[in-house]
Amino acid sequence: MNKTYSIDALHQKVELAINALPLTKKPQELYEPIRYSLAMGGKRIRPVMLLASCNLFNDNVEDALNAAIGLEVFHNFTLLHDDIMDNAPLRRSKPTVHTKWNNNIAILAGDTMFVKASELVMQCDDSKLREVLETYHKTAIEVCEGQQLDMNFETINNVSIPQYIQMITLKTAVLVAASFKIGAILGGALPEDAENMYHFGKNLGIAFQLQDDILDVYGSPDKFGKQIGGDIISNKKTYLLLKALQIADRYKKEELANWIFAPKFDAIEKVQAVTEIYNYLNIRELAKKEFEKYYVQAFSYFDKVLVSEERKFEILSISRSLVGREE
Amino acid sequence: MNKTYSIDALHQKVELAINALPLTKKPQELYEPIRYSLAMGGKRIRPVMLLASCNLFNDNVEDALNAAIGLEVFHNFTLLHDDIMDNAPLRRSKPTVHTKWNNNIAILAGDTMFVKASELVMQCDDSKLREVLETYHKTAIEVCEGQQLDMNFETINNVSIPQYIQMITLKTAVLVAASFKIGAILGGALPEDAENMYHFGKNLGIAFQLQDDILDVYGSPDKFGKQIGGDIISNKKTYLLLKALQIADRYKKEELANWIFAPKFDAIEKVQAVTEIYNYLNIRELAKKEFEKYYVQAFSYFDKVLVSEERKFEILSISRSLVGREE
Repeated sequence: MNKTYSIDALHQKVELAINALPLTKKPQELYEPIRYSLAMGGKRIRPVMLLASCNLFNDNVEDALNAAIGLEVFHNFTLLHDDIMDNAPLRRSKPTVHTKWNNNIAILAGDTMFVKASELVMQCDDSKLREVLETYHKTAIEVCEGQQLDMNFETINNVSIPQYIQMITLKTAVLVAASFKIGAILGGALPEDAENMYHFGKNLGIAFQLQDDILDVYGSPDKFGKQIGGDIISNKKTYLLLKALQIADRYKKEELANWIFAPKFDAIEKVQAVTEIYNYLNIRELAKKEFEKYYVQAFSYFDKVLVSEERKFEILSISRSLVGREE
Repeated sequence: MNKTYSIDALHQKVELAINALPLTKKPQELYEPIRYSLAMGGKRIRPVMLLASCNLFNDNVEDALNAAIGLEVFHNFTLLHDDIMDNAPLRRSKPTVHTKWNNNIAILAGDTMFVKASELVMQCDDSKLREVLETYHKTAIEVCEGQQLDMNFETINNVSIPQYIQMITLKTAVLVAASFKIGAILGGALPEDAENMYHFGKNLGIAFQLQDDILDVYGSPDKFGKQIGGDIISNKKTYLLLKALQIADRYKKEELANWIFAPKFDAIEKVQAVTEIYNYLNIRELAKKEFEKYYVQAFSYFDKVLVSEERKFEILSISRSLVGREE
């Protein structure tokens, strides 16, 4: 009989393993912010996806647990450094590390987390070590490149849609892709299945980010978990804004630009006005169409993976619930 | 016949390999500061030591070249982040990355260098991969801990000599130790020889830092390469200052404290006055004695390494010239 873990069971394994990490070493000034950062929670999507992907090919997921936690520590390291760069005061409604302590502590705690992540990722079978590390390092570089592109976009006025897709691919999607691929490798998948899982994750990650862009404007406040219109208020170059700027006529473009460059504004009024421009331009439907493209592509890769439908059930349902949230 | 490379020949190999690193990728905002950081120069001590250590046990050093460059990239990453934390405007007389660009660029370029370093370090034989990476990660964590201790010391008034030795061990010495050890592993050394090389490097690194503390006060300006008395001006807790605070009587301690806490002072006058207190307390001789202890210990470990004297000649002479600089 096949042993397929439920997503909840995998999630529990991940939480237990994170809580069991030996992070009480000295100097405590270094390890306390690391414990704080990892205890902030979050959905633990990446390690759960890694284990679920491993479980597609293997009944035993224990041997993949360290690598899974490693990717979560890596993800939290990137959040920690990104929060410094973005000057973000809060994450998940709690003070960010650089706010609670200071920038220096946040830089160094992040660096240390990155080493810890690498140590965890390499706790896998010798025969898979090099391939796992190559995927991990390639992805880590890409995530840095994505963050740089995101920072560049803040001062570039004519970001194109393909440039935007490239940025979110690097900054967000490749880490989901790597989680799936590393899980598959550790589960003993055939190379083509591991590759298909990578592309499943990459397209799913892009779809997820596009959905996040849509929900920022059209989500329901209690389900979205963030402030509705936050991207509009901060002039974030999301798919919606870039598409609007691309297709708007001279007058609508000027109207949008007036809001973007307004030195002072009422937040509610701005969100309302920009949303009305989006509605006029049918941006929500266009964004959904783009989302659909990646969503369908994602599952077309998953379909190719040579594993029984029964075995695929858990990963299918979590993926669908992640990128099919109710608005 | 044995093939022993001269230190100069190894240095040249290192420079060529660093120049050949593929760092012209996009986004250029990320890769330009990385090229700048690596082109700043420096003595390339760590990669040269790694290759020399490999060459003790093996005629072929080519297979260790990537790991050697990896440690140099890692070292430069730590300098880059340390410079942000220390608010240092210059390094090797050139503007630091965060000064020439900005903090965000410096954080992200550093992160990327760290990944590149790890990618290079793992370019070694499969049979040695895990051991090399374990040494590398353990060392990387320790370097972060050392930097944290160094930052802690800025606000602690009663740093003890053992605490200081622990800090310089972590911040400086273990990376020299790891260079020797990884070189030995890649050269095919026996485990006990690799361990002896580690302790040789660790003690050498501590001796090197103690000598640096002495030269800051007693070096000749043209040979030292830094401003004489720089540590005194900035109240840096060096071995000399900590020893002086430890052995001074009430009156001399007060005299020292007055200079340390003086809100305004003439730099030349301060350096002269503190140096005179050091002279009165015989600090130079005491520091030299401490230096000697680690220097002798270093070479006692090197003596145990089971390799011919002829083969040891190059590494012996570079080590002696590094920690036996004329004042």
